[in-house]
Amino acid sequence: MEIRKEPVKALPEPTLRRFPKYLQLLKRLKIENIRYIASNMIADELGLDSIQVRKDLSLTGIIGKPKLGFDLDELTQSLFHSLNWDNINEAFLVGAGSLGNAIMGYKNISAYGFKIIAAFDNDASKIGSIMNNIEILPIENLTDMIVSMNINIGVITTPEETAQQIANLMISGGIKAIWNFAPVHLKVPENIIIENAQLSQSLGVLTHKLAVVMKSHSSLPAKEN
Amino acid sequence: MEIRKEPVKALPEPTLRRFPKYLQLLKRLKIENIRYIASNMIADELGLDSIQVRKDLSLTGIIGKPKLGFDLDELTQSLFHSLNWDNINEAFLVGAGSLGNAIMGYKNISAYGFKIIAAFDNDASKIGSIMNNIEILPIENLTDMIVSMNINIGVITTPEETAQQIANLMISGGIKAIWNFAPVHLKVPENIIIENAQLSQSLGVLTHKLAVVMKSHSSLPAKEN
Repeated sequence: MEIRKEPVKALPEPTLRRFPKYLQLLKRLKIENIRYIASNMIADELGLDSIQVRKDLSLTGIIGKPKLGFDLDELTQSLFHSLNWDNINEAFLVGAGSLGNAIMGYKNISAYGFKIIAAFDNDASKIGSIMNNIEILPIENLTDMIVSMNINIGVITTPEETAQQIANLMISGGIKAIWNFAPVHLKVPENIIIENAQLSQSLGVLTHKLAVVMKSHSSLPAKEN
Repeated sequence: MEIRKEPVKALPEPTLRRFPKYLQLLKRLKIENIRYIASNMIADELGLDSIQVRKDLSLTGIIGKPKLGFDLDELTQSLFHSLNWDNINEAFLVGAGSLGNAIMGYKNISAYGFKIIAAFDNDASKIGSIMNNIEILPIENLTDMIVSMNINIGVITTPEETAQQIANLMISGGIKAIWNFAPVHLKVPENIIIENAQLSQSLGVLTHKLAVVMKSHSSLPAKEN
């Protein structure tokens, strides 16, 4: 099997956000012992446009086999490589509350090579304890440990009030990418990668769409109320 | 003050995903006692394009005051209304594990009118217990309670294996919108709203961008290793 190991090229975000969906499907098909898949099958299964799927997959550099489509294992590896999930990505997490704890325990991200190797908090009662096999350390150690362990990724699950200060500490230690769960816009130097994972953004889409649907119902010949 | 209460019109998703960011900024400015804000100030603060911000805000129906810009309170309410956050949106959650628990305890979504009023699980040891003031009920009660309480939103935080089955139960009870945290593509009738909040999508963008940055570093005149 031909496995692509070229360096990763910058891909558009909407494409990147679809890749994990493709991988979820491939995982299921693998269990069903399917060996080849065509891009229009993927599109059908996921309710996506087949031209878009074909274009997305071509961006990984993979080439399908005429009539057969893509080798399932090869496509899986191409997607993993494009997402940089064929590496171990080590991260420090700051904010060992319930959200931090949920992320530390989230199996689906550890399956993608993402590894939180230490967590930090300023709550003395948490320090020294172990959550999901990860030790909680005092926040005072954060910067030095980023330097000494050469950590590139920081996860922020603190309350919004402290998030900017934690981002500054992370960057001063040499963090290159921040996964921010705090509901605040972080101000960082241009070369720092910020990925916001804010539930409110997803929630707003849901509640808005619900309002539109409910409105279209209520605008049918109306009953008084 | 003029407050808009027209029915919500369907807005594009990228716009909806920016609205919570605007609200975060407005909340901070409110604390700083600022009363008016122009769209280009919002754009500058959030590192966005000012034409895009202006267009986004116009979609809420708000009209700015010449030279002053938007009244902060009025803009906040327009955004809340567009997101349907000026209503209480009641939801049932299924899957009272660590992610479910984190969502139940997440203050920032309860501030937006989102209210999980009961949670369901199939783990007998959890049933009857209280997490974040929310009672955990047996999954067998789910469909009947959706009907009797007229619940529109279901939150799925189960493992991927059971997510589809839970979605089916929710829909049979009359759920109109599903907020899905399980890493699986749910197959649902066309009239059901699905919003996927999957950490893997956000993680993939982060790790990909990091790989691109690391590659651009490593392609400098190379040291052997």
